[in-house]
Amino acid sequence: MNTLDHLIQEISRLPGLGRKSATRIAYAILSGDRADAERLSTLLGRLHDAIIRCSVCGSYTETDPCPVCTDSGRDRSTICVVEQPQDVAALEASHEFHGLYHVLGGVIAPIDGVGPGDLAIGSLLGRVRQDGIEEVIIATNPTVEGDTTALYVARQLEELGVRVTRLALGLPVGGDLEYADRLTLARSFRGRTSL
Amino acid sequence: MNTLDHLIQEISRLPGLGRKSATRIAYAILSGDRADAERLSTLLGRLHDAIIRCSVCGSYTETDPCPVCTDSGRDRSTICVVEQPQDVAALEASHEFHGLYHVLGGVIAPIDGVGPGDLAIGSLLGRVRQDGIEEVIIATNPTVEGDTTALYVARQLEELGVRVTRLALGLPVGGDLEYADRLTLARSFRGRTSL
Repeated sequence: MNTLDHLIQEISRLPGLGRKSATRIAYAILSGDRADAERLSTLLGRLHDAIIRCSVCGSYTETDPCPVCTDSGRDRSTICVVEQPQDVAALEASHEFHGLYHVLGGVIAPIDGVGPGDLAIGSLLGRVRQDGIEEVIIATNPTVEGDTTALYVARQLEELGVRVTRLALGLPVGGDLEYADRLTLARSFRGRTSL
Repeated sequence: MNTLDHLIQEISRLPGLGRKSATRIAYAILSGDRADAERLSTLLGRLHDAIIRCSVCGSYTETDPCPVCTDSGRDRSTICVVEQPQDVAALEASHEFHGLYHVLGGVIAPIDGVGPGDLAIGSLLGRVRQDGIEEVIIATNPTVEGDTTALYVARQLEELGVRVTRLALGLPVGGDLEYADRLTLARSFRGRTSL
């Protein structure tokens, strides 16, 4: 296989990219600046060395512990529990939460062979016990697995006397009632707030 | 800027990828195998050295002249004229054409400052004169610029006594009449064939 076909094949393995998009991207890189291709090459080459997991919270970071865990300006009494490291970036972008994070590394999914023991739940309990945590906000995805995991984690936390909350479910901002699914509408009725 | 943000920024510069897709791709590479990231890095790093333009037809190739130009099994009396090197790959995938190619390197577009002198038209005329070419199939895109360029090239070829043709316009195979645009429908009427 030649270099271009090989590149197209590798690009088409990335999420959301079919063979057509991969081909268009490969040709764009080829007909673009050599420096752009080399910059991308360098970044990809050092990615796995530069970015590690924080030993405290499990986020992706270039320094261990991560900038959030070492930031004395953050609210150290609240932990937000997420499924994946990339969820931290999404929540940080909301600028709404100023506490700490804890990455579970997945969800309980018996079909995929993932049980509670495969998730970073023990270390979460340890942090709650030792670090004076007052509230744990569970921000797993609003899916069957995410809900199951949230319930499981909440039960483990019960005896530690910490407040456990879950992110609100409802209509997405800027969304359209007409296009909202039944379950989301039902949840937004149940969670309605006073005006 | 950290490595991950930098990577997301570089990926989002690729065609068809916004910031959200770029973020998803970057995280997928990060959470995937180190070997996959390194293979992609290596391919991108050597891309511009490995792939050059054929000195005869202008296609992308790893050897000069390219495999098509040196293939004695191809019909050496027919040249298919395309805009870009990537068009050659698309036409080759149809397995319908067995002649040679000629890449113009663009289209006549006065608004973008591209005139006939910026395209590989002189070298096309040279090939037609010297290589016993009997037919030139013009396969520029069916756009205003592509049509203008096709007409211009056809006129230049007129005095060389070579047959000049253009790819048929009509409904795409598997397409739906209902969704075809007026111009395409008009062209498919005009170009209708006997059954």
